[in-house]
Amino acid sequence: MDKIAARRGFASDNNAGVHSGILKELQSVNQGHTLGYGNDVFTEEAIRIIRFHFGEATETYFVFTGTAANVLGISGITKSWNSIIAASTAHLESDECGAPEKFTGCKVLTVDTPDGKITSELIKRHIHGFGFEHHAQPKVISITQSTEMGTVYTPDEIRKLADFAHMHGMLLHMDGARIANAAVSLDLPFRNFTTDAGVDVLSFGGTKNGMMFGEAICFLKPGLAEDFKYIRKQGMQLASKMRFISAQFIAYFHDNLWKQSALHANKMAQLLSNKLSRIDGVTITQKVQANGVFIIMPSEVAERMKEKYFFYTWNEINSEYRLMTSWDTEEEDVNEFIELLKKELYQ
Amino acid sequence: MDKIAARRGFASDNNAGVHSGILKELQSVNQGHTLGYGNDVFTEEAIRIIRFHFGEATETYFVFTGTAANVLGISGITKSWNSIIAASTAHLESDECGAPEKFTGCKVLTVDTPDGKITSELIKRHIHGFGFEHHAQPKVISITQSTEMGTVYTPDEIRKLADFAHMHGMLLHMDGARIANAAVSLDLPFRNFTTDAGVDVLSFGGTKNGMMFGEAICFLKPGLAEDFKYIRKQGMQLASKMRFISAQFIAYFHDNLWKQSALHANKMAQLLSNKLSRIDGVTITQKVQANGVFIIMPSEVAERMKEKYFFYTWNEINSEYRLMTSWDTEEEDVNEFIELLKKELYQ
Amino acid sequence: MDKIAARRGFASDNNAGVHSGILKELQSVNQGHTLGYGNDVFTEEAIRIIRFHFGEATETYFVFTGTAANVLGISGITKSWNSIIAASTAHLESDECGAPEKFTGCKVLTVDTPDGKITSELIKRHIHGFGFEHHAQPKVISITQSTEMGTVYTPDEIRKLADFAHMHGMLLHMDGARIANAAVSLDLPFRNFTTDAGVDVLSFGGTKNGMMFGEAICFLKPGLAEDFKYIRKQGMQLASKMRFISAQFIAYFHDNLWKQSALHANKMAQLLSNKLSRIDGVTITQKVQANGVFIIMPSEVAERMKEKYFFYTWNEINSEYRLMTSWDTEEEDVNEFIELLKKELYQ
Amino acid sequence: MDKIAARRGFASDNNAGVHSGILKELQSVNQGHTLGYGNDVFTEEAIRIIRFHFGEATETYFVFTGTAANVLGISGITKSWNSIIAASTAHLESDECGAPEKFTGCKVLTVDTPDGKITSELIKRHIHGFGFEHHAQPKVISITQSTEMGTVYTPDEIRKLADFAHMHGMLLHMDGARIANAAVSLDLPFRNFTTDAGVDVLSFGGTKNGMMFGEAICFLKPGLAEDFKYIRKQGMQLASKMRFISAQFIAYFHDNLWKQSALHANKMAQLLSNKLSRIDGVTITQKVQANGVFIIMPSEVAERMKEKYFFYTWNEINSEYRLMTSWDTEEEDVNEFIELLKKELYQ
Repeated sequence: MDKIAARRGFASDNNAGVHSGILKELQSVNQGHTLGYGNDVFTEEAIRIIRFHFGEATETYFVFTGTAANVLGISGITKSWNSIIAASTAHLESDECGAPEKFTGCKVLTVDTPDGKITSELIKRHIHGFGFEHHAQPKVISITQSTEMGTVYTPDEIRKLADFAHMHGMLLHMDGARIANAAVSLDLPFRNFTTDAGVDVLSFGGTKNGMMFGEAICFLKPGLAEDFKYIRKQGMQLASKMRFISAQFIAYFHDNLWKQSALHANKMAQLLSNKLSRIDGVTITQKVQANGVFIIMPSEVAERMKEKYFFYTWNEINSEYRLMTSWDTEEEDVNEFIELLKKELYQ
Repeated sequence: MDKIAARRGFASDNNAGVHSGILKELQSVNQGHTLGYGNDVFTEEAIRIIRFHFGEATETYFVFTGTAANVLGISGITKSWNSIIAASTAHLESDECGAPEKFTGCKVLTVDTPDGKITSELIKRHIHGFGFEHHAQPKVISITQSTEMGTVYTPDEIRKLADFAHMHGMLLHMDGARIANAAVSLDLPFRNFTTDAGVDVLSFGGTKNGMMFGEAICFLKPGLAEDFKYIRKQGMQLASKMRFISAQFIAYFHDNLWKQSALHANKMAQLLSNKLSRIDGVTITQKVQANGVFIIMPSEVAERMKEKYFFYTWNEINSEYRLMTSWDTEEEDVNEFIELLKKELYQ
Repeated sequence: MDKIAARRGFASDNNAGVHSGILKELQSVNQGHTLGYGNDVFTEEAIRIIRFHFGEATETYFVFTGTAANVLGISGITKSWNSIIAASTAHLESDECGAPEKFTGCKVLTVDTPDGKITSELIKRHIHGFGFEHHAQPKVISITQSTEMGTVYTPDEIRKLADFAHMHGMLLHMDGARIANAAVSLDLPFRNFTTDAGVDVLSFGGTKNGMMFGEAICFLKPGLAEDFKYIRKQGMQLASKMRFISAQFIAYFHDNLWKQSALHANKMAQLLSNKLSRIDGVTITQKVQANGVFIIMPSEVAERMKEKYFFYTWNEINSEYRLMTSWDTEEEDVNEFIELLKKELYQ
Repeated sequence: MDKIAARRGFASDNNAGVHSGILKELQSVNQGHTLGYGNDVFTEEAIRIIRFHFGEATETYFVFTGTAANVLGISGITKSWNSIIAASTAHLESDECGAPEKFTGCKVLTVDTPDGKITSELIKRHIHGFGFEHHAQPKVISITQSTEMGTVYTPDEIRKLADFAHMHGMLLHMDGARIANAAVSLDLPFRNFTTDAGVDVLSFGGTKNGMMFGEAICFLKPGLAEDFKYIRKQGMQLASKMRFISAQFIAYFHDNLWKQSALHANKMAQLLSNKLSRIDGVTITQKVQANGVFIIMPSEVAERMKEKYFFYTWNEINSEYRLMTSWDTEEEDVNEFIELLKKELYQ
């Protein structure tokens, strides 16, 4: 069913559309001329708002995609002979087609984790060889918040990783493609588990939470972004009509649009998970802390379900599947899915 | 005046906003869920339309920026040890911060031209060393239509370059960031001066002619795009919510929106140019065949004009300036600019 | 003791000098002028000899270093969006400072192994995502023969990996930095466990077995090396005075110089290993199948030993050390080392 | 005649063999074990000698090829979004198959020159756009000494270029593949026209003047080489048996071996040039200041000459040819060549 337009399903939060508040802002900034490439008042305003949320030192650069946010952000703080350490489930390892290696030249080193979350203990096997020219020099630890497994790091877990990184002269990068879902899960301001927890560079995502496109690379410490404007341009990510990215961020932060959207998505994941947990033949494999639910179900049932709903197989070997909720998921969607699943399971 | 929001000026066609027809389509496709990454009906439709305009063999891939369209399109048809030949004024040489070299690994070879247009005669100095491993192997000739100097290649000129390229086992790339302005200038269908004139790969631009963002890489001959999906993804240019690029292209072609917009921009350039030609102290330096007007005026006058209007200095040495009109330029804008210029010149 | 000239120790086979037979040949070809860059009779001859050993289809390109042989050889058979699968102990993963990623743009995926040898079972976790553009496309399986752990693949093990690779449209690369030690260990012609076992590309090393410098990249199947001359040149590895690499290979194959040297090195490793196995407090951790011996000994003893002999710590956590023998190791060297070790252990 | 072993001809100074003094030193250091990768006493000594010639701040790194010396040296002082400015005849532009672009990611900008020598006047067209992110940022001016056209920069010319570079926050790189020929032509110590003239990074070549292989990258100012060891390793240019490069440099400087060799080569070029200048039908096109002679002669004569001697066509359009002398050229070689040429011309 690759090509058909799916109903509101559970494939990915990026299968959802754009929040009406975002669209409205896009219309609202569409007046007259502004300078291109970010030299406009809307971009200035969006940057100011992000600084308000993440701290005064924050340097923000908008790009188009999450992959670009990860790759360029990390490129800004590495040399080609560095290595980047991440979970083997990290988006930058598994879902970016080698973009980090191609653009940064760096080696990506991974570790397996039970839940998508790395710890200093898990990654310490990669922390060696400093000063030894035969060895790619470890420079960045990259975590995803919320993780690709639907789990969430606590501020304390992040702080420990940041301290560990800094102790070794390394930096901590956070892939925040779903940072909003983490923030509402933790019920904390962004700043608590980013800047204040020691994160150095953040990919701040909006597309998965109701924006049309556009991600922000946030350098949270002074001195990290010095030449970054050249990296963004050479990285093919400098928008000419930048105001249409910036406007989305303005709307995203206005009246807590981001928060309501993420709260809703997470709530729908809870609902889905609660209902699934009561179904015999379905096993939930990860804690549901954000907007993703991972389940094991019989593969033949899953195949039949996929005729109606698109969702991703996570692991063919153990019949594990990923279900994502989004800002526009409705209770009805969950109920219908559950009903169909029961039917397919017990028919 | 770097940071101020400019009035409707002559800095660049990308300082303009988005055509209302485009915005309306963005709203219209914002219903329910669709698969991400281009597996949706809108993308299918947009690709079909482009195939209608450029020929049945056309393989289309949408990306975000013009720089990406040039760099990735060329990457698809080169190996790192190739060279790319272009005018020294070409966008890929002068305005992409070395993105072609960084991503493709290729050498860019240039020639000076009087009007932004290359000929086989001009570039033949770079056509040698085939099979000689010390020499980057010439593979792509890249032209811009309409050129960065506001001029337009005739179909015959393009055909000659294509034949020349193919005779040497090379390919012809066209940077069509302003292809619509060329089409209306020539009063010809796109196909006449692209596919039918022998162009192999086209960067088809829309942003400069009323779109919000989004460009199309069109491989016009069979067999050129085989692995391109990986190049786009690794190039960080695969849009998750692709329908919002595709929708713009659907609207762009609907009811000849592109044509009306480009016709208007070109007409405004003619108006501006006609009025400028009657002003003593101003010299028009290039033929006005699209939507750009290049003039020499006293630099102190230009500086005072820049306090009111943002536009680019093209050449400091001879006080040459570039004025671009766009789909939303109004006669009044031209008149006001001319009046102010006269005042500044003759006061 | 980083800077001191060591006695004949066990640090690495590349701490040894050059075999007199090689040096003599270097002198012998040093007559008059020859064309540069490999267009000389000595290079022709060396290529012919290698073809004799590896099969008529073999295309050979000489380079300077083992890292270059691995990186460029793999570059010749990959696109930047491919992945390379190897043991986590592989030289290309651990000892090339990210050169594969930087030059090829590819992702390197690894698995842990007990003995430096991968199997299809071990690597199958990385064999998926074919045709899925988000995922770096698996293209090369790389094995090292003999391995970095001093073990040796049997022809049958290699054949199975080759079949597995080919079944998935992938290719098998062999890092043969110590291929001579494997050949004499197996007591088989090179061809049996390379070309005839399905290997596609081979880094054929000589430096570690008595040459001064120079490695050969051997494409063992037709059609793999088509444009490779450009890759070598752009990879900065085209020797101007190529005859001085070629001459070494000529001498290397003459009168089985390579075989005698490797037999000797392996024999010394056996001697060393036999003597070590009789020492209380020392544990041999890997099978000794080539010219490396891995042992665990008390770290304080190792530190004292290192004041006299340079050798590498393999694993700080379990006090594991690597001892390499070479073509010029003498029985006396082994005996002295053993005597000193006993003294340090039991004093 | 691509494949035949040529007599002592005029194709290139790298068609010559190795000076006996170099070979002897290679034998002499071939005793026992030394640490690999440059941690040996011979490398220490070679570095000390180079420091003596170029100044106490000099940081030296040995690599294998001239292309590598240029590319890696420049890589050490650039970011990928920089540009490098050179003569269009520069080796790094014309003879490195795009290696600079591939490895550094930088743009190479060129200017035509009458004699292979650039001036600040000639290159100033490329010195602009600083701070403008759309434009590759100019960072390195690269000159070749002696030039690819057989001419030599005076110390004063170099100083002016260095001042010009530094005034713009740029650095001066010298490709010294034939620096010895320049030194004896100027009759000055190396230091006078390198370190003391403001050169920042030097590719110090030896292969073209009697060495077997091996070039030195010399960072002449403090602070430029900080992370260079990683760049060399990732650049695949770290020699394991480094002593065999270092030894050659030791011999090269011993008893002025370099000077005698270069003096001889230059003298032979003078002899050749004097004799050619007296032949009707031959025009010498460049000043003969080092070991290259450029002449125009009838192409049919040149073709017949090439059946006996290999030499390069420089410019097919005007029948220009390049003749290089080397450390081992003999008067007899010159005389024979002249006699044959006369015969072919006047027969």
